[in-house]
Amino acid sequence: MAFMDDDFLLETETAKKLYHGTADALPVIDYRCYISPKDIYDDLRYENITQAWLGADNYKWRLMRCAGVSEEFITGSADDHAKFLKWAEVLGLAVGNPLYHWSHLELRRFFDYDGLLNADTAEDVWKLCNKKLQQADFSVRALIKRSNVEVICTVDDPADNLEWHEKLNNFSTRVLPTWRPDKALNIEKPGWRDYLVQLEQAADMNINSFKDLKAALKQRMDYFAARGCTLSDHALSCDVYAPAYDDEIENIFSARIGGQIPDDNEQTKFKTAFMTFAAREYKKRGWIMQIHYGCQRDNNGPMFETLGADSGYDCIDHSIPSGQTAKFLGSLERLGNLPKTILYSLNANDNSAIDIICGCFNTSFNNAGISKIQHGAAWWFNDNLDGIISHLKSLANQGYLAGFIGMLTDSRCVLSLHSRHEYFRRILCSVLGEFVARGLYPNDLKALSKIVSDISYNNAKKYFNFK
Amino acid sequence: MAFMDDDFLLETETAKKLYHGTADALPVIDYRCYISPKDIYDDLRYENITQAWLGADNYKWRLMRCAGVSEEFITGSADDHAKFLKWAEVLGLAVGNPLYHWSHLELRRFFDYDGLLNADTAEDVWKLCNKKLQQADFSVRALIKRSNVEVICTVDDPADNLEWHEKLNNFSTRVLPTWRPDKALNIEKPGWRDYLVQLEQAADMNINSFKDLKAALKQRMDYFAARGCTLSDHALSCDVYAPAYDDEIENIFSARIGGQIPDDNEQTKFKTAFMTFAAREYKKRGWIMQIHYGCQRDNNGPMFETLGADSGYDCIDHSIPSGQTAKFLGSLERLGNLPKTILYSLNANDNSAIDIICGCFNTSFNNAGISKIQHGAAWWFNDNLDGIISHLKSLANQGYLAGFIGMLTDSRCVLSLHSRHEYFRRILCSVLGEFVARGLYPNDLKALSKIVSDISYNNAKKYFNFK
Amino acid sequence: MAFMDDDFLLETETAKKLYHGTADALPVIDYRCYISPKDIYDDLRYENITQAWLGADNYKWRLMRCAGVSEEFITGSADDHAKFLKWAEVLGLAVGNPLYHWSHLELRRFFDYDGLLNADTAEDVWKLCNKKLQQADFSVRALIKRSNVEVICTVDDPADNLEWHEKLNNFSTRVLPTWRPDKALNIEKPGWRDYLVQLEQAADMNINSFKDLKAALKQRMDYFAARGCTLSDHALSCDVYAPAYDDEIENIFSARIGGQIPDDNEQTKFKTAFMTFAAREYKKRGWIMQIHYGCQRDNNGPMFETLGADSGYDCIDHSIPSGQTAKFLGSLERLGNLPKTILYSLNANDNSAIDIICGCFNTSFNNAGISKIQHGAAWWFNDNLDGIISHLKSLANQGYLAGFIGMLTDSRCVLSLHSRHEYFRRILCSVLGEFVARGLYPNDLKALSKIVSDISYNNAKKYFNFK
Repeated sequence: MAFMDDDFLLETETAKKLYHGTADALPVIDYRCYISPKDIYDDLRYENITQAWLGADNYKWRLMRCAGVSEEFITGSADDHAKFLKWAEVLGLAVGNPLYHWSHLELRRFFDYDGLLNADTAEDVWKLCNKKLQQADFSVRALIKRSNVEVICTVDDPADNLEWHEKLNNFSTRVLPTWRPDKALNIEKPGWRDYLVQLEQAADMNINSFKDLKAALKQRMDYFAARGCTLSDHALSCDVYAPAYDDEIENIFSARIGGQIPDDNEQTKFKTAFMTFAAREYKKRGWIMQIHYGCQRDNNGPMFETLGADSGYDCIDHSIPSGQTAKFLGSLERLGNLPKTILYSLNANDNSAIDIICGCFNTSFNNAGISKIQHGAAWWFNDNLDGIISHLKSLANQGYLAGFIGMLTDSRCVLSLHSRHEYFRRILCSVLGEFVARGLYPNDLKALSKIVSDISYNNAKKYFNFK
Repeated sequence: MAFMDDDFLLETETAKKLYHGTADALPVIDYRCYISPKDIYDDLRYENITQAWLGADNYKWRLMRCAGVSEEFITGSADDHAKFLKWAEVLGLAVGNPLYHWSHLELRRFFDYDGLLNADTAEDVWKLCNKKLQQADFSVRALIKRSNVEVICTVDDPADNLEWHEKLNNFSTRVLPTWRPDKALNIEKPGWRDYLVQLEQAADMNINSFKDLKAALKQRMDYFAARGCTLSDHALSCDVYAPAYDDEIENIFSARIGGQIPDDNEQTKFKTAFMTFAAREYKKRGWIMQIHYGCQRDNNGPMFETLGADSGYDCIDHSIPSGQTAKFLGSLERLGNLPKTILYSLNANDNSAIDIICGCFNTSFNNAGISKIQHGAAWWFNDNLDGIISHLKSLANQGYLAGFIGMLTDSRCVLSLHSRHEYFRRILCSVLGEFVARGLYPNDLKALSKIVSDISYNNAKKYFNFK
Repeated sequence: MAFMDDDFLLETETAKKLYHGTADALPVIDYRCYISPKDIYDDLRYENITQAWLGADNYKWRLMRCAGVSEEFITGSADDHAKFLKWAEVLGLAVGNPLYHWSHLELRRFFDYDGLLNADTAEDVWKLCNKKLQQADFSVRALIKRSNVEVICTVDDPADNLEWHEKLNNFSTRVLPTWRPDKALNIEKPGWRDYLVQLEQAADMNINSFKDLKAALKQRMDYFAARGCTLSDHALSCDVYAPAYDDEIENIFSARIGGQIPDDNEQTKFKTAFMTFAAREYKKRGWIMQIHYGCQRDNNGPMFETLGADSGYDCIDHSIPSGQTAKFLGSLERLGNLPKTILYSLNANDNSAIDIICGCFNTSFNNAGISKIQHGAAWWFNDNLDGIISHLKSLANQGYLAGFIGMLTDSRCVLSLHSRHEYFRRILCSVLGEFVARGLYPNDLKALSKIVSDISYNNAKKYFNFK
């Protein structure tokens, strides 16, 4: 096949028909990303392609570091032009890396450039892109519109006043908040007590007990709900599940207020109680519970001190504690408190374990055709060709692929909203086309088209039920 | 390739020759399944296809739940016709799922139906199948005969009197018991003491000590052996290996009789002692030891209370404790007590670890061409296209594929005896054909045919040495 | 494709051009193997092919055992001719096993034999090979020269006087020592105290404390450095990282001298301190730190007592403790003590976790184009077709494949020096060719050639910087 032409990744006739005939035109629901709502409100413009591509994208930073590039040219003091030349040199040889594909997709879709980006072409691409970036259709809002995005869900702290989400009320793409209470959950972290102060201010009440904390969080959930929130998100690093009595949790809480960091066992008890409370509230409100497993953050101390979090120094932690996860979900199910749930692990070895856990708790979800408990899309380090294929095939083998709610970007770069969904949809069509080509599924375009549009758009729309 | 025609999964000329020329006609040895021996003795007939397909098959129930189908239409009060329509609707879109293939194979082989099963065809298929099911050749025994099954090994409790196995003495397919003493092993379970009473009755002796328990089990092993048993089976959830002195085990036993549940460490010691005893007895008797790792059962409490065990709510537990497993097998080898052993993990990430452990204990097994320690076939959640291929390729890369004893179904559905072995054999031929097509193995049909017939039939026949 | 012809594994035009045009002619840098330097110095000759192939190669022994061959014909008293016949019989059916490919590559490259090796041809191959082995160009040195090997790094104990390395000073292939201080590291092992005596003699000083041990090791490092050593190697079985104060380590050391085996926690503290010290010294000297994870050794007691270590009875242990590994590397980075590092796990499930950890510590490595922290090549049980492909694709997806330092053999068989590198290079070209054929990378032969030659040779040459 030719390099990244219109039929990129579409090896079969079926795949071509499904992508060009169905997937391509569907709107995007990006139910998890890190695009700044303020940038959208401000309708930010980029001075040059380095700012657009390398300004905040730690995926690209990481790749440059792997290629031995000095930090000066990544996040350091080199000028934007020099940084771009280094990026082009690295990217040009990044065979097999998803950034190679995303970057070239973005050059094709937004910049009408069909050539290669590498050391030889860097100067030309630099000029071409920067010229285009001056056009009206390259502001952040214009890029989002051109990407056919219907909904963007950002990731937000319970203490946030959601100012920008409110102000974006009349933007054609809905920009909705996601409830991410990790700072309240992570009782062992140094900043936990300071964070409670922020939460007290936001909720306008004192927090002197776990009971108070729950009251404050409920109040903030109502605030979020009034601004369109229907999703929560949690990064879990511990092995939930360790149930405990209320007074034990209150004691752990009090001790922590008094300065005593809970031990591992106490942390797990606190987090179990926290998550159990949170899940019940989500269920009441019809919210979705997202749980992300398996990340150990900020592993490079000196760089953390220089650049802060989310700068490309996170790693994959151990496998999902599947037995514990099943016990946690089972405890919610027993009391009728299990909300719609999406499970993700950064460790792709967990694909099957998650697919199977999901299958244990789909009972009595009468929304025909969609799984109540979802295995979230191949995410972050798994968001690549082989990672997406593995995820889809595992789900097909061990669950109900047609009931999957599809892709999210997790992205910090507005240009990648489109490219990441396009990449996913092409791979989805490719996998389905391969099934047909191998005689594993009939060449039934009606059924296949339904599956493609459901996974690309319809399932998410029905599942999230955005107001 | 056309959809599921005669050359289903046989992408190469070599694969076609191997399947049609060798694999297809070989008898089936299904050395592990859950077909009821009473149903076989009764020569049960099904009133309709819902009873045959959905009556006991929790694989299908799970898929329907993943598709959001209400439990009413799965195990609930809806009538058989309505249940079938729901099943057809779900199956029709279950792209990539092994049930899609097994079900269509069964429609082709038993019902002479070459079309699709989906929402559009459901009514026609319902009528067609139900009509056929009235024919004489659709009773359970007839289906087993049509499936060319030479041996079926069921899974049986040591306290079972094996009444139906005895009565089936003159059935052309041998129906043999498998010794599964999990209820005696799992000292921590609530029902353990009650179970000992059953065992006392079966063995006609009192069980007041671990020594007594061993005596009773030996007596029951003799009883099983007299009825053709040569296989044992164990589901291990703990990390064997923790050796202890006899009096420590007796103390754990006594305390448990007195109502005290042993802690994790004591459980592991008891189970180590139990498995060490059992293995030695198997070795003496020429029995095979099967060990299944990595399942956490009955995760959905409310559904467990409604439907009981084995209703589709089990999940994959952590990886096989490979270091511990090697220590356990090593302790048996040291004393000359290591029987032929088959290791399985529900966690497919363990494929390589198991292949390599097997290679450490094959020493001095003079049954040329077969591995003494086997990595059991891709089982349960791994019994699908990608799971079987991974298992076979891992074994080929890291062990001796030609010495593999092949497939078992683990099935609760008599129609699937044939389809699951056919599926496996086609995939085996496909993998070998691919090796030839890629120049990885010569196009030596004599050698390849030998490998296919050995894995499909001869190796199992020699390995199990059924009387 | 034809069986193992000149285009073996080269399925695409691009792959053929890259292998024949670039990869094939490049010298080999085998930066880790177990070829005996004494054998090289002695310029050993083999009487027959059994000695050359089966004399020390536990990979082959393991395969024979999996095929049920009696130990008599593997390491036992059978004569070399009988052993070879058994080997040929097993190998002939070892479909999908890398030994099948390596053995046939060796027959083609060294013995000019293009046929098959199996039970039918065994006698002819026996005669052919033994005749050739009498030729001058079949001595160990001649074989190394014919294999185009520029550098061999052996694995050596700090107490070793490196006599043979010194004597090999004028051999055209550089034979360099690797520093492997496992015997000093493994404080829990029965032989640890005896080993310290050896080290005292080598360093000509008393070792009564951890401080002394470090002094002795530094002295031996200087000795190794003077003889060309730039690599270290460690097999880690524990979960590093547990930092402790110096006096705590000294207490553990003293207690051990007094006969008290440290508990698990103390072992980890000791090993953390040891590795922290070692890494700092490597950094100072510009050495590379190799860490191998995930092996549990000598699992078969009786065979260990008969044959000793490294006789084919090792197995894969649990996954790499990725969180701990990141903490250990992070603690070195914080103090500027992180040397160039190569991480390997015997558990291929760890591929992604390692790729991602590597990406966290490449900061400020100004050797453009090469990753400072490397994921070592698919090794030992992973050194097979699927294992190598998985490793390369994981690295491409999650790191910078073009910056990889490539293959090592880990071999004990001089004939396999060439075949294992050839196998790797063909697979590398195959993977790159597949990327082009699927439109995932442009058909840019200049860029692809650079990537191939960098991974096959240039990167290693630059990275190791052998004197």
